[in-house]
Amino acid sequence: MKPSLSIFLAFVIIASAPATAQRRPDVRIREAFSTSVLDFVNPFVGTQKMGHTFPGACVPFGAVQLSPDTEMIPHNIDGVYQPKAYEYCAGYQYDDPTILGFSHPHFSGTGHSDLGDILIMPTTGVLRLDRGTAEAPETGYRSRFSHERETASPGYYSVMLDDYGIRAELTATQRAGIHRYTFPQGEGRIVIDLTHGIYNYDGKVLWANLRVENDTTLTGYRITRGWARTNYTHFAVRLSKPIKNYGHRNNERVLYNGFWRRFKTTENFPEMGGTQITAYFEFDFDEGETLEIKVALSAVDALGALKNLEAETAGKSFDQLWAEAQSAWEKELSVFNIQGTRDQKTVFYTALYHAMIHPSLYMDVDGRYRGIDHNIHQAQGFTNYTIFSLWDTFRAQHPLINLIRPDLSRDFVSSMLAHYQQSAHKALPVWSHMGNENWCMIGYHGVSVLTDAWVKGVLPERDFPPELLLEAMVNSSNIPYYDGSVEYAQLGYVPLEVTGNAASVTLEYAYDDWCIYQFAKSIGNEEVAAAYQKRAQSYKNIFDPALGFARPRYRDGSWKEDFDLLDTHGQGFIEGNSWNYSFFVPHDVPGLIEQMGGREVFEARLDSLFTMHLPDKYFENTEDISREGLMGNYVHGNEPSHHVPYLYAWTDNPSKAQPRIRAIMDQMYQNKPDGLCGNDDCGQMSAWYIFSAMGFYPVCPGSDQYVIGAPYFPKLSLNLPHGKEFTVIAHNLGPQNIYIQSIRLNGKPLQGYFLTHGDITGGGILEFDMGPRPK
Amino acid sequence: MKPSLSIFLAFVIIASAPATAQRRPDVRIREAFSTSVLDFVNPFVGTQKMGHTFPGACVPFGAVQLSPDTEMIPHNIDGVYQPKAYEYCAGYQYDDPTILGFSHPHFSGTGHSDLGDILIMPTTGVLRLDRGTAEAPETGYRSRFSHERETASPGYYSVMLDDYGIRAELTATQRAGIHRYTFPQGEGRIVIDLTHGIYNYDGKVLWANLRVENDTTLTGYRITRGWARTNYTHFAVRLSKPIKNYGHRNNERVLYNGFWRRFKTTENFPEMGGTQITAYFEFDFDEGETLEIKVALSAVDALGALKNLEAETAGKSFDQLWAEAQSAWEKELSVFNIQGTRDQKTVFYTALYHAMIHPSLYMDVDGRYRGIDHNIHQAQGFTNYTIFSLWDTFRAQHPLINLIRPDLSRDFVSSMLAHYQQSAHKALPVWSHMGNENWCMIGYHGVSVLTDAWVKGVLPERDFPPELLLEAMVNSSNIPYYDGSVEYAQLGYVPLEVTGNAASVTLEYAYDDWCIYQFAKSIGNEEVAAAYQKRAQSYKNIFDPALGFARPRYRDGSWKEDFDLLDTHGQGFIEGNSWNYSFFVPHDVPGLIEQMGGREVFEARLDSLFTMHLPDKYFENTEDISREGLMGNYVHGNEPSHHVPYLYAWTDNPSKAQPRIRAIMDQMYQNKPDGLCGNDDCGQMSAWYIFSAMGFYPVCPGSDQYVIGAPYFPKLSLNLPHGKEFTVIAHNLGPQNIYIQSIRLNGKPLQGYFLTHGDITGGGILEFDMGPRPK
Repeated sequence: MKPSLSIFLAFVIIASAPATAQRRPDVRIREAFSTSVLDFVNPFVGTQKMGHTFPGACVPFGAVQLSPDTEMIPHNIDGVYQPKAYEYCAGYQYDDPTILGFSHPHFSGTGHSDLGDILIMPTTGVLRLDRGTAEAPETGYRSRFSHERETASPGYYSVMLDDYGIRAELTATQRAGIHRYTFPQGEGRIVIDLTHGIYNYDGKVLWANLRVENDTTLTGYRITRGWARTNYTHFAVRLSKPIKNYGHRNNERVLYNGFWRRFKTTENFPEMGGTQITAYFEFDFDEGETLEIKVALSAVDALGALKNLEAETAGKSFDQLWAEAQSAWEKELSVFNIQGTRDQKTVFYTALYHAMIHPSLYMDVDGRYRGIDHNIHQAQGFTNYTIFSLWDTFRAQHPLINLIRPDLSRDFVSSMLAHYQQSAHKALPVWSHMGNENWCMIGYHGVSVLTDAWVKGVLPERDFPPELLLEAMVNSSNIPYYDGSVEYAQLGYVPLEVTGNAASVTLEYAYDDWCIYQFAKSIGNEEVAAAYQKRAQSYKNIFDPALGFARPRYRDGSWKEDFDLLDTHGQGFIEGNSWNYSFFVPHDVPGLIEQMGGREVFEARLDSLFTMHLPDKYFENTEDISREGLMGNYVHGNEPSHHVPYLYAWTDNPSKAQPRIRAIMDQMYQNKPDGLCGNDDCGQMSAWYIFSAMGFYPVCPGSDQYVIGAPYFPKLSLNLPHGKEFTVIAHNLGPQNIYIQSIRLNGKPLQGYFLTHGDITGGGILEFDMGPRPK
Repeated sequence: MKPSLSIFLAFVIIASAPATAQRRPDVRIREAFSTSVLDFVNPFVGTQKMGHTFPGACVPFGAVQLSPDTEMIPHNIDGVYQPKAYEYCAGYQYDDPTILGFSHPHFSGTGHSDLGDILIMPTTGVLRLDRGTAEAPETGYRSRFSHERETASPGYYSVMLDDYGIRAELTATQRAGIHRYTFPQGEGRIVIDLTHGIYNYDGKVLWANLRVENDTTLTGYRITRGWARTNYTHFAVRLSKPIKNYGHRNNERVLYNGFWRRFKTTENFPEMGGTQITAYFEFDFDEGETLEIKVALSAVDALGALKNLEAETAGKSFDQLWAEAQSAWEKELSVFNIQGTRDQKTVFYTALYHAMIHPSLYMDVDGRYRGIDHNIHQAQGFTNYTIFSLWDTFRAQHPLINLIRPDLSRDFVSSMLAHYQQSAHKALPVWSHMGNENWCMIGYHGVSVLTDAWVKGVLPERDFPPELLLEAMVNSSNIPYYDGSVEYAQLGYVPLEVTGNAASVTLEYAYDDWCIYQFAKSIGNEEVAAAYQKRAQSYKNIFDPALGFARPRYRDGSWKEDFDLLDTHGQGFIEGNSWNYSFFVPHDVPGLIEQMGGREVFEARLDSLFTMHLPDKYFENTEDISREGLMGNYVHGNEPSHHVPYLYAWTDNPSKAQPRIRAIMDQMYQNKPDGLCGNDDCGQMSAWYIFSAMGFYPVCPGSDQYVIGAPYFPKLSLNLPHGKEFTVIAHNLGPQNIYIQSIRLNGKPLQGYFLTHGDITGGGILEFDMGPRPK
């Protein structure tokens, strides 16, 4: 049965916040006649509280995320950790009253942080090289601003800097950030603060260099020691107007600096170097005159940055580059067509937008890139990417890319293999960024990403030798100093003496080993397959039969004493408690059910998970999420439970998943700055939404299976690569009609709640009949 | 007249110290039948007192100077300068009782310092990662040693490390240092101290990285902030024996290091990073077993270092590489054949050896190098070199290379032009090393090097566009913030308000401008020629007519008051007083004579210079030289007077130069560790000796003229490029017969005391008849 027009309209008419997209004047005219998908992206979603997203400008998977930073809280002051620094993972917090300036690379949604390199701030009046304070902005170069005079859309950001009367606009190319500042009449300047950074501290900047090549060109670099233990950020800057006058301050105690002392290097001296460099460049402006600044990055050298600058921006105005950025996003986001309310569409496309920022380009236009070994490599036959938050993104973000951009997945896998081959540890990335392994979180989930791409046919054998893939996977699972891998291989579990996260680690190793088993089996390597099939069962070794829950063990086999199933701290788990982490056996749900005590217990446990009251004392210890990110004891703001609602498919009442998933989507994803209930985690949170909106989810990446939840929109079409289309239709969907009554794939009834990757990539129609009650 | 055989033998038989050259066993057999020029090089010359040379192993103009460091005195401690650090410009002082280890790049003979990167020390017994003290070597990894168990020859150095019973041997290739350590039985190790350096201080090491690639391969790098404000030293190490065990210490207060805390990274963890890294690698040894270590350097990246390692050392043993190093030196040094005593020959060939260390190779085998802009460049059609101590070497070392290795001069000029094109200052090098301008000393003598090579026909126009050369020269002379260049152009002199060295700077600018004039004239650029011809006369503006000496002036034209002609400090001069600096008008000696008051005064002044008694109070203020470096008020240990003895050629008694030059050679160059009377200054002191031994000297580089002094040997032949030979014969030369009676060039009497470059490069014979009295 088709939904009546009136019901459809009821869905559409539900009022929502005005679209946040800001369009170029010439585009606005076009807008009167068409509706762009860009109008349904709100980059402010997640910029308040714990989303850790940024509102600034970037292109899909680009190297630059040019965005305002609203505060700089040091990671530590004289060794004392400053917890508030954590709020600034993306540099911007919606509640802040001032902007420090606009820096170039940013993480989107991470739970740890870095970057924020090369901050530029336009100012007028007295020269101030300190950043000042939010309480007294006039003590520094920062400016007050208001959200009323701030807009953002894909590839564009704009704000009025109230203290200076300067309108700031940002856009981006793949490798460059483009600034446009409209100045009032008189002397104006830009400050380039090379001391600024995210998760900054005294000592983060190992070296900064800045050269004035000519009166409109600057080059330079920064080497920092942040979360990326050694991060090289080279840059090239082109100004639309010649510099009148310039200078810098090096705010450090310089103990030895050769013969440079002999010069007055602080004014109009074209070479600046030090660890605490803040520079300024002055100009005379007519009223309303603009200064356009193109800033290209390179991890290789400033020559690379100059080449990037030339290749991507030469001869192009801000408006042209803005239009190109918009086109890039329009093309990328248009992979989906959906029917829904404005807010629903905005949540959906914003999620898609957030799922398309990382991994990010990390290669110059000439193919040179900086490897994990810090060497300069020439990419052969692939494009190099970085920012692999794999503990998060193996779950849904990489599977999403396998579905919608398999070409990109190939580059991601190639980048991961390059990492493997360049790694001193001979391991695939764990959490890597900017030519560094930062070792964040647990497991070796690179093997999941490789296997998922492999089983889904994304990796042609001629370009991805199976032996190399298997070698990389096996080696990654046997790094002797990594989180108890030796003990795990010996005992079948990671003992609690080795790591405080022993139970989580054991569960995740078992899953990862299953991926290796899958891969080895698929290429016919029986020996490795057998070994890893066995290892994949290791999760059972930490299921306490008396509890039916995962529980860490000591080396001698004894169970952790004083065990609290609900506490997320000190119990052997990380970012989760035993209650939710015990469900992390995505590769062997039947086995898990057995461990828990059978199907009934399993279903009851799932019910309880979503409905139990979690006392505040437990929530207070749960990281990275808002209170809104909880549903009972189900924690959507962190990743370990993301697949859990879909586990109802293995129970006698799969329909129980359907209202829960819809409730998570409605409650935990909203079109407002605090619309994310936890860190977006490089698009994982968002990718969960995209899949869930389609009506299915990759519960076990590394298999080709998707598990059906419930469709969210009346109609959703996915434009597949090679011109095919996959459409999901939910007949009779309505506020009450949220339960699946029947499912048809290409007109044929679907038995059960499972789809394969091939069911989708072949194109076709997945139809649901919806009704008000479970069936 | 030919010298009789008996006289010749008398010369040869004069006893000298035993040859220091150590030969390989198989070479020793050969030695019984032949005498190698290598036996006449004593690398210890200059290692005591102020010579600042090193005894270690290198090849001609190579990138690596692998040599023992005997102490590490910080440049400063908490900002307080430590003057003793100055003695360790080359890392080694002959009087020291201990050796810290063997580090890879070293300056030879400089008056400022840096380098000493990647120190390796073999030890046994208790693991010590501190360097300890000379008084209590057992507090650190250092070892006592004795000169009795130490030898050095070109391309080879060996010492017994007495505290460990380890014999250390060193040799080198172009880009690699090769170590061979013979261990006693038992556990032994090498310490790699990445905190070590020359002119070190707390803060010099910006970052160090070390990776264990496999059990016989290490890679890594150091970025330092020394005299080279940003110096990148990458390295690759290959061990002849697998590592048994390894670890490191990072001796710093680490405030933030991401998730690396989570691992025990101090033992057998293959990736080390920090600013204070000292690592160790352990092995088991049989008695007398050797460990060979090949260490290649690259300024680009570790991949570059690995390529260099492969290209230059793969499959070759220490002995083979040693033999190659010897061959390289033998070929290079055999450009001269001389007759003389063993000591004379040793002084001569040691000088030639010291004149062939810098400039040094600064490019990987694949043609990549790090430019002055810190970018990675690909050299097109030239080999890149660094270490240009131009204030010193423009005088005689570059002219020497123009004569004996014009092909190398082309590379040097190409390297200087690359520097110019990459410089933010658009200037030729002043004093540059390791991709950095360090701005040491005064003038823009790069223009002298270019012009000298040009007028001597070294630079073919098709490879060296004259317009580019001229542009580089003119720009270098007009850097607005450089040492009063603006005031110089306006006033005709650099006023004392601008720099304390105003008089020296004015004299040297005038000479440099004459070079530009010469060049412009030679390529027919009349406009530039006229302008610089005028500028070249600027020296006259600071000659005080009342004194006939150079005297600094203030901006208003008034002379410096309380002027002391003999003081080297506070009088407007640098590394010299007015008495000797006033003679620095090499390009216009007739004009100088006029300024001084005519030929008689000029000659009397020269006489006084060499004979006057310089009160101790003046000597105490004279830098960088020993008391032995003085002859009256003539200071040979510093460069400004190097041409002065030859100025007698413009007097009525040119023969007065002859005993003086011979006396300088005999007294100030000796075959002993303190045999140099001042810093060798990258071979300038030594190149002076080579020219003077030939009997002539390039008083005014940039002209093609040589000024005859006196021949030093009975016979000297120079093998010119392209197979020609130039021979200098001094008939009847003897202890008393040191005066020239007559001169013949190719059999024809020579009028006057001047030769041209063409007179030499055409090949031929320059004959002197010598006698006991001036003629």
